[in-house]
Amino acid sequence: MAKQEKLVEAITSMEEDFAKWYTDIVKKAELIEYTSVKGCLVIRPYGYAIWENIQRIMDGMFKASGHENVCMPMFIPESLLQKEKDHVEGFAPEVAWVTHGGSEKLEERLCVRPTSETLFCEHYANIVHSYRDLPKLYNQWVSVVRWEKTTRPFLRSREFLWQEGHTIHATADEALEETVRMLNIYAEFCEKYLAIPVIKGQKTESDKFAGAVSTYAIEALMHDGKSLQAGTSHYFGDGFARAFDIQFADKDNTRSYPHQTSWGVSTRLIGGIIMTHGDNNGLVLPPAIAPIQLIIVPIAQHKPGVLEKAEELLAQLNAAGIRAKLDSSDNSAGWKFAEYEMKGVPVRLEIGPRDIENGQCVLVTRHNREKTTVALDALVDTVRSQLEQVHDALYNAALANREKRTYRCTSMDEIISTLEEHGDGYVYAMWCGEESCEDEVKEKTLVGSRCIPLQQEQISDVCVCCGKPAKHMVCWGKAY
Amino acid sequence: MAKQEKLVEAITSMEEDFAKWYTDIVKKAELIEYTSVKGCLVIRPYGYAIWENIQRIMDGMFKASGHENVCMPMFIPESLLQKEKDHVEGFAPEVAWVTHGGSEKLEERLCVRPTSETLFCEHYANIVHSYRDLPKLYNQWVSVVRWEKTTRPFLRSREFLWQEGHTIHATADEALEETVRMLNIYAEFCEKYLAIPVIKGQKTESDKFAGAVSTYAIEALMHDGKSLQAGTSHYFGDGFARAFDIQFADKDNTRSYPHQTSWGVSTRLIGGIIMTHGDNNGLVLPPAIAPIQLIIVPIAQHKPGVLEKAEELLAQLNAAGIRAKLDSSDNSAGWKFAEYEMKGVPVRLEIGPRDIENGQCVLVTRHNREKTTVALDALVDTVRSQLEQVHDALYNAALANREKRTYRCTSMDEIISTLEEHGDGYVYAMWCGEESCEDEVKEKTLVGSRCIPLQQEQISDVCVCCGKPAKHMVCWGKAY
Repeated sequence: MAKQEKLVEAITSMEEDFAKWYTDIVKKAELIEYTSVKGCLVIRPYGYAIWENIQRIMDGMFKASGHENVCMPMFIPESLLQKEKDHVEGFAPEVAWVTHGGSEKLEERLCVRPTSETLFCEHYANIVHSYRDLPKLYNQWVSVVRWEKTTRPFLRSREFLWQEGHTIHATADEALEETVRMLNIYAEFCEKYLAIPVIKGQKTESDKFAGAVSTYAIEALMHDGKSLQAGTSHYFGDGFARAFDIQFADKDNTRSYPHQTSWGVSTRLIGGIIMTHGDNNGLVLPPAIAPIQLIIVPIAQHKPGVLEKAEELLAQLNAAGIRAKLDSSDNSAGWKFAEYEMKGVPVRLEIGPRDIENGQCVLVTRHNREKTTVALDALVDTVRSQLEQVHDALYNAALANREKRTYRCTSMDEIISTLEEHGDGYVYAMWCGEESCEDEVKEKTLVGSRCIPLQQEQISDVCVCCGKPAKHMVCWGKAY
Repeated sequence: MAKQEKLVEAITSMEEDFAKWYTDIVKKAELIEYTSVKGCLVIRPYGYAIWENIQRIMDGMFKASGHENVCMPMFIPESLLQKEKDHVEGFAPEVAWVTHGGSEKLEERLCVRPTSETLFCEHYANIVHSYRDLPKLYNQWVSVVRWEKTTRPFLRSREFLWQEGHTIHATADEALEETVRMLNIYAEFCEKYLAIPVIKGQKTESDKFAGAVSTYAIEALMHDGKSLQAGTSHYFGDGFARAFDIQFADKDNTRSYPHQTSWGVSTRLIGGIIMTHGDNNGLVLPPAIAPIQLIIVPIAQHKPGVLEKAEELLAQLNAAGIRAKLDSSDNSAGWKFAEYEMKGVPVRLEIGPRDIENGQCVLVTRHNREKTTVALDALVDTVRSQLEQVHDALYNAALANREKRTYRCTSMDEIISTLEEHGDGYVYAMWCGEESCEDEVKEKTLVGSRCIPLQQEQISDVCVCCGKPAKHMVCWGKAY
């Protein structure tokens, strides 16, 4: 059998063309494949396995904090979408409309959910009657559709996978507490499992979710200095409850409107992983969500005993709960090195005849290509500690990058010159709270408000735009 | 605080009105809630938790047999759906059509997937080029839409959750082997985890999946003597590959068409659980997929020490991997008994002051209301073995019911009189293989072919309809 080795082609470097570097990785690491419908993509097994790991961990965090999963229909009747005024204005322009079932025209057209507040509200109206029915802490893992003009894999697609939490509470305080609780869970997840440091903050009025009283978000700085909104958590007050006439009998039998929240993260997180940790050799995956945590590459695998030893190590690692895989295909070791670097596997294990003789193997960490020779009887412990070290190294590098690229400015001119000199990043600057100043900053400096960080600094006393007394420090930047 | 105990209302008995008994359980066990769109339902937390257990176990079986999860888009362009002639004829009449994105009319309308063969084929054409790319063993967990006229919760809804496996192989033999492998996995799953005995068989020509060469199914007999098709597995030959021009270079570099399969089970399985095990007190859940395997009901819970002891037992059971829950609400013990019977929780644990004094508690199994007094230090082991016994008892009862209601007939008159005398069930009778006879049997006896069981019996030598030589023994019956 002739060797028909597939080539691992080089990818565009991120310095040359960041957008192309990104899509090269998405394709060549086999995360995504395009289809004939723009903005609707196939998530391939390797990409989907990352999402499954994200789901599993996050779902555990949701359940541990008392949430239950449900599943709402995907269709929303037009009249239902229209019940909350701000909400329909925000979403109607970008929904996909179903008009026919089989050959019959529907009496009322249905949109494919762009988000499910209205469906949850209809349901709450059916099942919430008494204070005893509250709170309901619901979540669902589904796909949603938003008919975007420009699309990019994971970052903005017409259909995307996400989870949407929807909760309903007897009091405003409880709902607000939930809004912040979920923001904190998102931040903890990103930092602890994706090795992505995030800024927790509140969105400005102009940037709120359609129908929300307040929107909170976590923002992460990507390699190119742009910000990715990685998760959002909304407080609705009783606006939706009033629009959908959801009322409950309180303990003293008076009728009240309950208070609601919703919160979501999506497959966007995978885009965030790529643009936070990836390099010019491909993907770099944080160990907690890597489908393969360690790849075994046998050296001179035709020599007696090599594959047997590799299988033995594989069994040992898998038994220890490490997601290890052995590539015993007839591709060359060099090809395998490049392939699993492209796929971002955190640790590579090389084992050949000489290693076996010496009772050792070689471990190479993906992010820094550092080699370590390890005695086979210390293998499992060493791999475990290397996986932890990889996580920490990725997190620290991302944090250092963000700190290096966070600029504190006290004037518009300083914002402009700083970004000109250093390139994109976060600008911390004060703001009076007026939308006109927010617009003017964006127009003149090209950076918009990402959020009002919960952790405030008093950079100056006055608004960077109008010079009037400042209300907030805003984190400004360009966004995905 | 005044006690406002919710009432656990009685449900319609299955003898009185089987269909109403079914929907009563679906609603009162809080599995489903209706929405304003016909045939599109909310799967509530308790119902969804059953589905999550089904998913978790089945997904493990798929992965153990080498399958990988992917995610295809939900939209299929009309031209793509039309590529395989039989397939489009079968599905086009019942798809939901998206015609507008936002306010713009789409150039080509898109249907919401009723099944995803065409999407997988488009994808295979992009990624399958060489024998080295084969097989691909894919699965996805998604919802699909079929615009049915009459709908029933879980059994026939316009949108439903399912998994669809799609595989592509170098040879017909491999694909056929896969088709049967998945049929066997479905049968094993139903019997081992849902306690539902199934008949494995092949569908007749007239009952095949649109586009398939052959369709296999598992069929289960419900309480009312009707059959539920609980899962299907299809062999496509190379028909789809030819329609979508999927070709691969073989080892000798000749180009060949690959062979495909698909297979699926859906939330229909939950309907099957209800109609196989449920009784006039509500749901009866097989332990393997019960969201709550054991409910602790404290007796005289206001007395000192009762709730503390109940919490202690809860922790002990949970630590042992048993899905136990404690209901310490202020509802009466009687209310709780009825509520968790309605919800089909396999085992109830009662613990009160006298039990604590005696170092014991009472276990009651849901399906037969049998009471056992158990020493607390033997609790975990006893519960474990009771859960196993419950599974076996449910399975054996379902099997006995099926056997009692399976009739072997050698003439049409005998079919008619047997069903008249005993009510609905399975009729085993011989068939010549002609569609005209199949139609005539259905017309005259009102039972249609459910499948040609893989396990054949030679009931007679001639077709029950035309008297010509018989080719197969068919399992006839009414179907959901």
